[in-house]
Amino acid sequence: MYEERIKRTELQQKIISADQAATLFKDQMVVASSGFTKAGDSKAVLKALAASAPANPLKITLLTGASLGHDTDGALAEAGILHKRMPFQVDPALRKKINSGDVLFVDQHLGESAELINEKIIPRVDIAVIEALMIEADGSIVPTTSVGNSAAFAAAADKIIVEINMSVPLSVYGVHDIFSTGVWPHKRIIPITDAGSRIGQPAIPVDPEKIVAIVLTDTTDSPASINERDEKTSAIAAHLLEFFSHEIKKGRLPHSLRPLQSGIGKVANAVLEGFIDGDFHHLTMYSEVIQDSAFNLIDAGKLDFASASSITVSQACYNRVFSNFEKYKPHIILRPQDISNAAEVIRRLGIISINTAIECDIYGNVNSTHIGGTAMMNGIGGSNDFARNAYLSIFVTQSSSKAGGISHIVPMASHIDNTEHDVDIIVTENGLADLRGLAPRERARLIISNCAHASYKDELNNYFTEACKRGGQTPHLLQEALSWHSRFNENGTMLKTVHV
Amino acid sequence: MYEERIKRTELQQKIISADQAATLFKDQMVVASSGFTKAGDSKAVLKALAASAPANPLKITLLTGASLGHDTDGALAEAGILHKRMPFQVDPALRKKINSGDVLFVDQHLGESAELINEKIIPRVDIAVIEALMIEADGSIVPTTSVGNSAAFAAAADKIIVEINMSVPLSVYGVHDIFSTGVWPHKRIIPITDAGSRIGQPAIPVDPEKIVAIVLTDTTDSPASINERDEKTSAIAAHLLEFFSHEIKKGRLPHSLRPLQSGIGKVANAVLEGFIDGDFHHLTMYSEVIQDSAFNLIDAGKLDFASASSITVSQACYNRVFSNFEKYKPHIILRPQDISNAAEVIRRLGIISINTAIECDIYGNVNSTHIGGTAMMNGIGGSNDFARNAYLSIFVTQSSSKAGGISHIVPMASHIDNTEHDVDIIVTENGLADLRGLAPRERARLIISNCAHASYKDELNNYFTEACKRGGQTPHLLQEALSWHSRFNENGTMLKTVHV
Repeated sequence: MYEERIKRTELQQKIISADQAATLFKDQMVVASSGFTKAGDSKAVLKALAASAPANPLKITLLTGASLGHDTDGALAEAGILHKRMPFQVDPALRKKINSGDVLFVDQHLGESAELINEKIIPRVDIAVIEALMIEADGSIVPTTSVGNSAAFAAAADKIIVEINMSVPLSVYGVHDIFSTGVWPHKRIIPITDAGSRIGQPAIPVDPEKIVAIVLTDTTDSPASINERDEKTSAIAAHLLEFFSHEIKKGRLPHSLRPLQSGIGKVANAVLEGFIDGDFHHLTMYSEVIQDSAFNLIDAGKLDFASASSITVSQACYNRVFSNFEKYKPHIILRPQDISNAAEVIRRLGIISINTAIECDIYGNVNSTHIGGTAMMNGIGGSNDFARNAYLSIFVTQSSSKAGGISHIVPMASHIDNTEHDVDIIVTENGLADLRGLAPRERARLIISNCAHASYKDELNNYFTEACKRGGQTPHLLQEALSWHSRFNENGTMLKTVHV
Repeated sequence: MYEERIKRTELQQKIISADQAATLFKDQMVVASSGFTKAGDSKAVLKALAASAPANPLKITLLTGASLGHDTDGALAEAGILHKRMPFQVDPALRKKINSGDVLFVDQHLGESAELINEKIIPRVDIAVIEALMIEADGSIVPTTSVGNSAAFAAAADKIIVEINMSVPLSVYGVHDIFSTGVWPHKRIIPITDAGSRIGQPAIPVDPEKIVAIVLTDTTDSPASINERDEKTSAIAAHLLEFFSHEIKKGRLPHSLRPLQSGIGKVANAVLEGFIDGDFHHLTMYSEVIQDSAFNLIDAGKLDFASASSITVSQACYNRVFSNFEKYKPHIILRPQDISNAAEVIRRLGIISINTAIECDIYGNVNSTHIGGTAMMNGIGGSNDFARNAYLSIFVTQSSSKAGGISHIVPMASHIDNTEHDVDIIVTENGLADLRGLAPRERARLIISNCAHASYKDELNNYFTEACKRGGQTPHLLQEALSWHSRFNENGTMLKTVHV
C-alpha cells in the first residue's frame, strides 16, 4: 500500500523503522519538525528519539510549526533531550521544564518563526522530520493535516526524514497551497485577495537527495478536546454576536462580516457556533486553525470558505471530515504559517480576529502568555500576528476564575504581549468594551464598567481614581500596580478580603 | 504669483484670510490637518483658530499625520480648544494638558491612524486643513514637505481648507507618490518592491466642490534642532556600525545593507552619519522621515534613494535642499503614511529599523512612550509599524541619564509599546545585545552584561538571580519589578545608595 504514496520509487528503499531513524540524531543538532496545533506532527520518530535517550544522551534545539500532539513534547522534555524549543508548545511536562529553566523556550510570533531559518540567523537545520501524505515523483512532499513551517524546514534542512502517515486518506491531496515569498532581496508579493485565493502548489518542493529516511506510520492526530459551551462562554459569545449585529446595523459590516480568525478553545468555538443561528451568511475564515465549529458552519451552509495552516478537530469531527473529505475540500485550504499569518494578507483582507487573553489591564494591554508575570502557559502563538494587523482585534476572557480568586481584569497586566495600541475590543461574560478611538482614561472607565467582575469593580475604580489624582496619560500607582498578583501569590486570591 | 499655484481658476475666488477661515470651525467638530514630523503642517489656520478662542470658545477633536510645528499644538492646547488629539504630538504645552487629563490623547501606530476614518469608526471629518504646494486644474492637491494622512483626510472631509504655502518652491512638484489601497472589500495590493518604486500619482485627488477656502501663507516648516554628536551617541553609532560590518562578514547582509528606517533624533543621525566613512555603498532608506543625515549621505554618494512621508531638516539643510531641489528629487519620494509605514511593504523589503527607547527591560521589552509608566512623552509614532515587521528591529538608548540617576535598563519596563517578541537588538553606549533566537533568561544575561550602566549592573544581576530562584520563563520579583521607578519618584534617583 505504501507504494502509491512514494511515487519516487527509488525512495521506497529508504524505509526504516522509527528506532533506526532515531539513531540519525546527534548531540547539539538543530531539529525541525512538522506539526501545528497538534496536527500533522511527527508521530513516530520524535517519540523514538525520546525513548532512545538512555542509550543515546543528547541535547537538541527543536523547532516546529506550533504545538505537537501525542505528548511528544513532554516525552522529549522528560527524557532531557531539549536544550531549546521554539516557537510554541502546549505540553504540561514541557511547560514545567521551561518554567524551571531546564529548557530554553523562545516564544515567537508564529507568522515570523520561519524567518530565523530563512535568513540564516539560525545558520543550519540538521534534520527535518516531516509528516507526509505522500511523496510525489519529483520528490515533493505532500503534507497531511497541517502545513506549518514544513516548507521552510524542508528547504533549509541538510537531511529530511519523512513520516508517511498511512491513516490520512489520499483524498486530502489538493487541499494544500504551498507558496514561498522567497528571501530578500527577491521577496515576492503574496497575491492573496480573498480567503480562497489559491496562489501556490499542492506539494512542498524538496531535493530528493536530502530525504535520508522514510518511516511509515498509521497514527491519527491527537484529537482536540471537546469544549462544551458553559454559561460564561455562551455569555461572551452572545455579547460578541450582538456587537456584530450592531455593526451590521451601523453599516460598518455586511452580513458576511469580514474574514474571521479565531484562536483555539471554548470561547472561539462558542462564538463560531453562534453564527449558525444568527443572521449571518456567506462567512469566510482566514485563520491559523480550522476547528469543529468551522465544519459545523460549512455543514449549516453558513461558512463559504476557510483558510488556515491546520485542521485540529475532535475525534468525532475527524472521522466525519476525513471519511468524506471530497465534500469539504472545495471549502478549505491549508497554507504555510508565514502565509496564513502574514501581516500583508491580514491587513489587506480586513480580518476580524478573536483571541483569548490570560488577563487584560484597565488600559487595554493584554497578557497572552504568562501566569503571574513569570510562568509560561503556551506562548503568544499567532495572536499578535492577527491582532496587530486585523481590522478588528478582539480579546476574550472570563472576568474571574478560581472561585472568584483571580480577576482577569487587573490594574496592570503582569506581562504584555498585545499592547494597548493593538487591542480594539475586550469581552468578558459581563459585557463588551469597544476601545476604538478612545484615550486610556476613557478605556479604563469602559473596561471596568463593562468587563470586570462585580467583586473587583470597586477596587479597580478606586485604583483608577487614586491613580488619576497623580496624573498621566496612563495613570498608575506603581507600588500597587502589580500588587494583585503578589496578593494572589501570598494568599491564593486577588481579593482583599477573603469571602468565606 | 498665487495664480500659477491655483490652476483651477474658479477656486481663486475662495482665497480668504486665516482669521476668516477660523470662523468656519464649530464646537464638537472633528478636524483633520496635514503635518508629519513638523513638516507640511498648517501654518496659519490652526493658529488663527487658537487665537479666536476667547471670541469663539469651542472643543474639537484634532487628527493629524503626526507632530505639528510652530507650537501650534501648544497654542491650541493652551487655548482650551482640544477635546481629543490623535495620533502623535511632541509639544511640551500639549503634553502637560495630556498628562493632567485635560486633553484626551489617543496614541496610535502612525501607519494605522487613517484607518479609523477610512473605516468610518470615526464617522465623519468636518474640516480638513491641508497645506499645499498648488492645486491642479482638476482640483487635486499637491502636498508640500510631507504627505502624512492628507489623502485620507481629503477623501473623508466634508470641507477642505487649503493653505497654499508660497515659500515652497514649485520644483517640489513630482516628489510625491499618492497611492490609496482603497477600503475593504476592494483593498489593493501595495506593489512596492523596492524603496524607489513609484506606484501612484503626484497629487491627492479631491472633489473641488469640497474646497471651501484657500489661505495663502509663506512660512517655512519649523526647523529640526541640530543634534551634534556627543560621546554617547557616537559610541552607540560605533557599536551599530561594527555590528553591521560583522553581519556583512558573516554573509547575512550586503554592503548596501537593506533598506534603512530610522527614528528622529541624535542617535539616528549619528548612526546614519557614520555610514559616510564606513565600507557601505548604495544604501537605501524606507522610512517615515528624511532628515539632514540622509541628504548628507546623498551628497556623499552613499545613499541611492530615500522613501518617507516627510522631510524634516535643520534650517541650513532646508535652505540647501530646497534651493536646489532638482538635484535631490531623483533620490527621494514622499508617500502617504499608511504606505511609508505599511506592514506589507516593511516585511517585503526586509527593513533594518532603528528607533529610540525610553527604557528597555532585561527581557527585551521596550517602553517608547511613557515616563515612569504614567506620563506621556510623545507617542509610539511609527516605531512599532517598523519594529513589528522589520527584518532587524533595533532599539537604542543611553544606559543611564540624569547624572546616573535613571537607568534605562530596568528590571521591568513600566510601560510596554514594543514587546520582547518584536525586539531584535538593543544598543547603549556600553554595547550591543543581539537577542535573535534567545530565550528570556539568555536575553537578560546579555542585556545586563552588554548594555546596562556599570552603576546598575550588580543590582540588575541580583534581581535576575533572585528572580530565577522563583522560576519562570520570564523570572520576576513582582513586588520589586517596578520599585526602581517608585524609588525615582521618591528619591529623584533609581540608585539605592545616592553617590555624592
